[in-house]
Amino acid sequence: MKGLGATGGAGLAYGAMSTLGLAPSTAAPARTFQPLAAGDLIGKVKGSHSVVVLGGGPAGLCSAFELQKAGYTVTVLEARTRPGGRVWTARGGTEETDLSGETQKCTFSEGHFYNVGATRIPQSHITLDYCRELGVEIQGFGNQNANTFVNYQSGTSLSGQSVTYRAAKADTFGYMSELLKKATDQGALDQVLSREDKDALSEFLSDFGDLSDDGRYLGSSRRGYDSEPGAGLNFGTEKKPFAMQEVIRSGIGRNFSFDFGYDQAMMMFTPVGGMDRIYYAFQDRIGTDNIVFGAEVTSMKNVSEGVTVEYTAGGSKKSITADYAICTIPPHLVGRLQNNLPGDVLTALKAAKPSSSGKLGIEYSRRWWETEDRIYGGASNTDKDISQIMFPYDHYNSDRGVVVAYYSSGKRQEAFESLTHRQRLAKAIAEGSEIHGEKYTRDISSSFSGSWRRTKYSESAWANWAGSGGSHGGAATPEYEKLLEPVDKIYFAGDHLSNAIAWQHGALTSARDVVTHIHERVAQEA
Amino acid sequence: MKGLGATGGAGLAYGAMSTLGLAPSTAAPARTFQPLAAGDLIGKVKGSHSVVVLGGGPAGLCSAFELQKAGYTVTVLEARTRPGGRVWTARGGTEETDLSGETQKCTFSEGHFYNVGATRIPQSHITLDYCRELGVEIQGFGNQNANTFVNYQSGTSLSGQSVTYRAAKADTFGYMSELLKKATDQGALDQVLSREDKDALSEFLSDFGDLSDDGRYLGSSRRGYDSEPGAGLNFGTEKKPFAMQEVIRSGIGRNFSFDFGYDQAMMMFTPVGGMDRIYYAFQDRIGTDNIVFGAEVTSMKNVSEGVTVEYTAGGSKKSITADYAICTIPPHLVGRLQNNLPGDVLTALKAAKPSSSGKLGIEYSRRWWETEDRIYGGASNTDKDISQIMFPYDHYNSDRGVVVAYYSSGKRQEAFESLTHRQRLAKAIAEGSEIHGEKYTRDISSSFSGSWRRTKYSESAWANWAGSGGSHGGAATPEYEKLLEPVDKIYFAGDHLSNAIAWQHGALTSARDVVTHIHERVAQEA
Ligand SMILES: Cc1cc2nc3c(=O)[nH]c(=O)nc-3n(C[C@H](O)[C@H](O)[C@H](O)COP(=O)(O)OP(=O)(O)OC[C@H]3O[C@@H](n4cnc5c(N)ncnc54)[C@H](O)[C@@H]3O)c2cc1C
Ligand SMILES: Cc1cc2nc3c(=O)[nH]c(=O)nc-3n(C[C@H](O)[C@H](O)[C@H](O)COP(=O)(O)OP(=O)(O)OC[C@H]3O[C@@H](n4cnc5c(N)ncnc54)[C@H](O)[C@@H]3O)c2cc1C
Repeated sequence: MKGLGATGGAGLAYGAMSTLGLAPSTAAPARTFQPLAAGDLIGKVKGSHSVVVLGGGPAGLCSAFELQKAGYTVTVLEARTRPGGRVWTARGGTEETDLSGETQKCTFSEGHFYNVGATRIPQSHITLDYCRELGVEIQGFGNQNANTFVNYQSGTSLSGQSVTYRAAKADTFGYMSELLKKATDQGALDQVLSREDKDALSEFLSDFGDLSDDGRYLGSSRRGYDSEPGAGLNFGTEKKPFAMQEVIRSGIGRNFSFDFGYDQAMMMFTPVGGMDRIYYAFQDRIGTDNIVFGAEVTSMKNVSEGVTVEYTAGGSKKSITADYAICTIPPHLVGRLQNNLPGDVLTALKAAKPSSSGKLGIEYSRRWWETEDRIYGGASNTDKDISQIMFPYDHYNSDRGVVVAYYSSGKRQEAFESLTHRQRLAKAIAEGSEIHGEKYTRDISSSFSGSWRRTKYSESAWANWAGSGGSHGGAATPEYEKLLEPVDKIYFAGDHLSNAIAWQHGALTSARDVVTHIHERVAQEA
Repeated sequence: MKGLGATGGAGLAYGAMSTLGLAPSTAAPARTFQPLAAGDLIGKVKGSHSVVVLGGGPAGLCSAFELQKAGYTVTVLEARTRPGGRVWTARGGTEETDLSGETQKCTFSEGHFYNVGATRIPQSHITLDYCRELGVEIQGFGNQNANTFVNYQSGTSLSGQSVTYRAAKADTFGYMSELLKKATDQGALDQVLSREDKDALSEFLSDFGDLSDDGRYLGSSRRGYDSEPGAGLNFGTEKKPFAMQEVIRSGIGRNFSFDFGYDQAMMMFTPVGGMDRIYYAFQDRIGTDNIVFGAEVTSMKNVSEGVTVEYTAGGSKKSITADYAICTIPPHLVGRLQNNLPGDVLTALKAAKPSSSGKLGIEYSRRWWETEDRIYGGASNTDKDISQIMFPYDHYNSDRGVVVAYYSSGKRQEAFESLTHRQRLAKAIAEGSEIHGEKYTRDISSSFSGSWRRTKYSESAWANWAGSGGSHGGAATPEYEKLLEPVDKIYFAGDHLSNAIAWQHGALTSARDVVTHIHERVAQEA
C-alpha cells in the first residue's frame, strides 16, 4: 500500500476499476477536494465479502460506511457504548469511570455540552465533506477573537496582566511596522530593497501598523476603548498603547501565528450540537445491527479463512471470523491483544508513543464573558497550566453556558492528570480567575473533566511517532511505513497513520485508503 | 443635550432620577457595557405623555421601545411597509421599485436571503444587547477567511491573479519578519533596541514569519497545499511562495488591517435568518397598533401643544399631534418636509451629505465556493468595481446559497448605480468570474440588487458630515453639534448623530440618548 496515497488518494487509485463508473475523474483539478457522494469512492464488489472493523471511532465508522456502500458485509466491534472514540461530547447524562477508578456524572443543563476530544474542523478537511454527505449541520467555530485575553509571565510590567488580543496585535504590529519602516528609511535594507520596493513596503506598513504621518506608532482605535463610543459627543476613550519595550519583551505576540496556521486559520467549523453528531450519523447509516457496542476485543489473529477476532460483550466471550479485518484500536493498545502479529509489527506499534491532553468544562449560570468581557466565543491564552480558556460557540446571549476551563497537552496536562476531578476544578478556577477575575469563581453550576491518558480504550490523546520529532504527521518513520502495509488480512487505520495526526481528517483519509486497498485486492483476486 | 453622551451615556445621565431605581449604578466598571434589561434605561414617567416617532428604522424603533417601557404613549410613523429602514433583508417575495422606476421581485428559494443593508455586528456594539433583550438568536458571521481570495491590479506577475488570504499573509508576514530580523541583526536599530529587546524580537519574528533557522522565509505550510495532505505517504504538495519583490509590490497585503480593525475584527455576529429579525422583534414588542406602516410624513411642525405631524397613509392625509417628536428620517430628506425649523437647523441638515453604496445577491443552485474553492463564508477582495464577493454564512454544505456578488461604496458603487438590474448582474458576473473562474457564470437561479442612493426613503447609504473628512464619526462638526440639540419639542436621532455612522450601534445609542433627554425634561417640568 506504500505510495498509494501519494498517487492522489483513494478515489484516484481505484478510479479505473470502479464497476459503476462513479469514481472521480482523473481530470479533476488538483487543488480541490472531490466532494464525497454515495458510491463515489469505489464501485460495487462482486460476490460476498466480509470485513470486521475493530473500533467505532472515526476511522472505524468511516471504513464501515464506505465498505457497505461497496457491497461488503461489515461488523464493527466497539468497546465503548457510544460511537466516535476520541470524538466525545460531554452533556447531561454522560457518565465515565476513568482508569484511576473515579466516576464522574455530567449534569450540564439540557442542550449544553462541550467536546472533550475533537472540537473544530478546518475548511480543507474531508470531515466537512462527510458532514455534507451525512446531513450533519455545521456552524462557525470561534477560533480567533480580538476580545479574548493573553496573559503570560514575563520580566515586564505586563507580566500576569490580561491583555486583549486586539490590543496585543495593534501594539505588536504597530511597533513592528514602525521599526521596519525606520530601518528601511535609514537605508539599512538597500541591498535587498529597491526604491520602488521601499515605497510599496512603506505604504503597506503605514496601514498595517496604523502609523502616524511621520511613521510612528502612537496607539490605535484597533486596541479598543475604555468606554465604548456612542452617540452625540461620546467619542469613547481609546485605550493607551503599551511601551515598545514592554510589547517586545512581554511576549504577548507569541500566539499570533496560530491565527494563520494551516489548519487553525478562520473560518473554522463544528457540527451544531457537538462533534459526536457526525458519528451518530455514521451509526445511523451503517445500522446498529452492524455495530456491536460494549464489545471489547481481546484477540485478533490471521487464520486460513481470514481473520478471527475474539471479544467480550455483555459478560460473555464471542468470536467472529471475516475475510479481512481493519484494526483502528489505538496503536499502543494493539500489542495487548492476543495476536499472531510478526515481531517487527509489534515493534513498530510500540513506536507510536501515547501523549497527554485533557479538558475541563464548567457550566456557568451566567454568561459573564459576554455581558462583562464582551467575549463571544474564541479562547484566552496563557502560560499557566490551563493553557487556554475556550468560550462556548453555542447558546450565545442566553442565560448559561459551558466554558472549557482548560485544554492543555503534554507537561501542562500532566499537572492535571493525576488530580481528582475536584482538585482539577479548584486548580482551573484558581488559574482562570487570575485571567478573567473574581467573577470566574462565581455562578458555577457543575463541571466535568476528561484526561485522555486516564480514559479507558484510549489511554492517549494522540500518537507521537518515535523519531519524528513529535510532529503531527508529515514525517514517515520506518515504523510508520511498516504499519501502512497489511499483515496478511489485517489492516491498520487511524489518524496515527496519516499526516493529520490529532485530526479526524487523518482518521477518515486513512480509512478511505485502507478501504480502497482492500477493494483493489478483492478485485484482483476475483 | 450637548455633552450629555460624554458623561457616560443614557443610563448614567438619568441614573439619579430613575423612579424605579433600576438605572445602572455609577460604580459599574468603566470598560463594560451594562447589559440591557427591561426598565434599566429610565424609570417610569409620571402622568401621561405622548411621543410621535418619525421613521421605523433602528433609531425610531429603539426610541419607541424604550419610551414605552418608561410609560409613554408612542406612535411610530414609517413610510415603508416593513420595519428596519436601512436594515433590509431581501428574500423570496421582496419587491422594490427604485427611484428610476425599475421594479425587482426577489425569487430566492425558501429560507435564502441576503442583507442589502446592515449585515454584521461587532461584539462591543449595543446591537447585541438588544438581540439578547429581544430574544433574537445570533450566530457567527464570517468576516475573515484564509481561503478567500485577493485579486488586485499591479505591475507585477501577480496582477489580476487570485491569491488566497492565507498565502498572501504567510508571504507578507514571512518577508516582513525576515527583513526586520535582518535589519535588527545588522544593528540598524541599535539606537532603539537593546540586546535583550533584539533577542525577544527575533524570537517573535521567527515564529510570526515561520522563518528558517538562518532567519529566512522559504515558504510555509500556512500558505496551503496544491493537493491536500492525507493518510499514509500522501504528504500533500505545499504551495511555493511568491518572490519577495512580487509580494511587496503587488499590494496583496493592503486589506490585512481590516482583520484587526476595531469594529471588524472577529468574532463578528449576525442574527439567524437575516438582520431584519431584530426589527421584527422590536415591532412585536412595540405592538403593530402603535406603528403606522405606509405612513409617509409630509410635514413636521412645532406647535403650542407640542408637535404636529402630517402624513399620507392609504391614500389619505392624516395628522397627529404629540407632546414630543423624534425625527429619525435621514437628515438630507428632512428639509423636504413642510416644517417650521429655524434656518440654521435646515443648514445644519444639509451638511449631512448622502453617499453611495449597494449590493447584489446571486442565488446559485450549487455551492461551488464550498465544494471547489473550500470557502465557507467570508469575502474575496478586489480593486475591481465589485470590491468584494461575500459568501453566505448560512445553509453551509447545502445545495444552494446566495452570494453577495458586490458590496461597493463611493465611486465603485456609482459604476453600478445608474445601471438596470440586468446590467448590474452582467457586470458583477464578468468581474466575479475573473476572480473565481468560469464556474462563477453557471448555476445561477436568480438575483436581486439594491442601490441605496436610488432607494426611496433612504436616498443614501449613510451620511458624510461636510468638513469631517468623510469619517464614520468621531469628528463633531458645528452642524453635527447643532442637531444634537432639540428644536423646541422636536429631537433628531439616527446613526448620523453618532460616532458609529453606518452602524446600528450608532442609531441605537442615539435613540437612547434622545429618549433619556426627553425623559429628563419631562421629569424636570413635572
Ligand atoms: C483532546 C483532543 C482534541 C482533538 N481535537 C480535534 C479537533 O479539534 N478536530 C479534529 O478533527 N480532531 C481532533 N482530535 C482528533 C480526533 O479525535 C482523532 O483524530 C480521531 O478521533 C481519531 O479517530 P480514530 O478512529 O483513529 O481513533 P479513535 O477515535 O481513538 O477510535 C478508536 C476506537 O477504538 C475503540 N477501541 C479501543 N480499544 C478497543 C478494544 N479493545 N475493543 C474494541 N474497541 C476498542 C475505542 O473505544 C475507539 O472508539 C482531537 C483529539 C483529542 C484527544
Ligand atoms: C450598505 C449598508 C451596509 C451597512 N452595514 C451595516 C452593518 O454591517 N452593521 C451595522 O450595524 N450597520 C450597518 N449599516 C448601518 C445601519 O443600517 C444604519 O446605521 C441604521 O439602519 C440606521 O438607522 P436609522 O434609524 O438611523 O436610519 P434608517 O435605518 O435609515 O431609518 C430611517 C427610517 O425612516 C423612514 N423614513 C424616511 N423618510 C420617511 C418619511 N418621509 N416618512 C416616514 N418615514 C420615513 C425610512 O423608511 C426608515 O425606515 C449599513 C448600512 C448600509 C446602507
